[in-house]
Amino acid sequence: MLEEATAFVPGHVTGFFSAHPDDDPTKAGSRGAGLTLTDGVEVTIEPAEKSAIVLDGTEIEVEPVTTVLETLDATARVEATSELPLGAGFGVSGAMALGTALATNRVFERKLSENELVTIAHGAEVQAGTGLGDVVAQAHGGIPIRLEPGGPQDNKLDAVPARARVEYVSFGELSTADVLSGDTEQLTAAGKEALSRVVEEPTLLSLLYASRLFARDAGLLTERVTEAITEVSAVDGQASMAMLGETVFALGTGLSDAGYEPSVCATHPAGAVLR
Amino acid sequence: MLEEATAFVPGHVTGFFSAHPDDDPTKAGSRGAGLTLTDGVEVTIEPAEKSAIVLDGTEIEVEPVTTVLETLDATARVEATSELPLGAGFGVSGAMALGTALATNRVFERKLSENELVTIAHGAEVQAGTGLGDVVAQAHGGIPIRLEPGGPQDNKLDAVPARARVEYVSFGELSTADVLSGDTEQLTAAGKEALSRVVEEPTLLSLLYASRLFARDAGLLTERVTEAITEVSAVDGQASMAMLGETVFALGTGLSDAGYEPSVCATHPAGAVLR
Repeated sequence: MLEEATAFVPGHVTGFFSAHPDDDPTKAGSRGAGLTLTDGVEVTIEPAEKSAIVLDGTEIEVEPVTTVLETLDATARVEATSELPLGAGFGVSGAMALGTALATNRVFERKLSENELVTIAHGAEVQAGTGLGDVVAQAHGGIPIRLEPGGPQDNKLDAVPARARVEYVSFGELSTADVLSGDTEQLTAAGKEALSRVVEEPTLLSLLYASRLFARDAGLLTERVTEAITEVSAVDGQASMAMLGETVFALGTGLSDAGYEPSVCATHPAGAVLR
Repeated sequence: MLEEATAFVPGHVTGFFSAHPDDDPTKAGSRGAGLTLTDGVEVTIEPAEKSAIVLDGTEIEVEPVTTVLETLDATARVEATSELPLGAGFGVSGAMALGTALATNRVFERKLSENELVTIAHGAEVQAGTGLGDVVAQAHGGIPIRLEPGGPQDNKLDAVPARARVEYVSFGELSTADVLSGDTEQLTAAGKEALSRVVEEPTLLSLLYASRLFARDAGLLTERVTEAITEVSAVDGQASMAMLGETVFALGTGLSDAGYEPSVCATHPAGAVLR
């Protein structure tokens, strides 16, 4: 057993999605597309007498992380530091679950494959209801298009072959559970429409365009988000809403140009990695 | 149209493989496993009156690169610089084909997806007979396990969740075409055996062990390669032969410890990326 291991998992903003439930959490998930980010979560695993999860210095409960530790039969201290806010649409819980799976496998020498570890983290996240597609996107990196839902044994991924500077501002949280318990028929129809648009033209511009239509048609826009997206458009920028959070992300200098003081990062070329 | 675009593609040493021919080059390929490397090939594409391919300052013919340009209906100067020797088992031709696909798509705004570009490069490489699995491995990054052959529409990939310092020495070239026209029955049996070993225990140590057995059982070892692997083993290191080249790669400081003066790099965490 090693003393500790650390994994870095990129953040992930979803531009649009459709939900695909299944009794088996490793087959359930979402279709959609988004951007993985160089801002992300670093997770360090250290064997301990009693499991504990610490995010940016504060001990918290994160159900999918607990599930991952239990699945890997590990008792450990999970120390995470995040450049991104929790609950605001950046996939922080998915990142913590996937980082825990990768680093725990290394520390406790569980000898599982990458796909097996991604499957465990994805299933734990779906089961907890904290996310549907972040984990598989974060394992892939880049600008993933999720063509088929589920873990690596079932899903099908493609990607937009590009990279970009990304800016974002977050006004607050949105509850994934609340949204998914609402009218998902409209959301699913909007998600399918958006996906077919991006499959037809897999570019960053079409991804942002499809994402804006999705946010509008799915009825998820808040006043502050609408305002920010409109202001970025007014300066010829490209922005949309991160699903699911009261967060706006933009390509290049879109938010700065519109007078915001955004956080700045870029698309992340790689998936989750051990340090 | 942009003035130019550049892509970086990691090198790839195959530890073991089995060949899987098919009339459709996008379905043909190989099963196997190997390491992608931080040493790789940088490819810059610039529109030109007449296509030309330059590797490290010298104009050369690289059939899969020509095929990729033709498929993307592009006339361009392909300027590649490589940290790795051509023909020695590092996947340089595959890297040139994939880098050309990614950068050409960007310069000529062809709006293809990542999978479509990987499929074009893979098919071109298989058709030319210069490689069977390098392109899909190089698109994935890390330490890919190729469970099913073919391009992204058909294949199935997993990976060893690890990273390592890698050393290598190259004594010369081996002809892929010569090896594949020989007794491939023995090679295929050895490749299947090696793959099942690594699937059972997806770790770096088991990959190196399976690779050594494969090199021996497939009858591909040369005298100098055998000597180097034996000398690395004698100092408790892990080394094997790169398929297909007269090249030895080792984990950590294996070759240095054995008294060689190797090139030094590491496993590459990401697949091919646009700069």
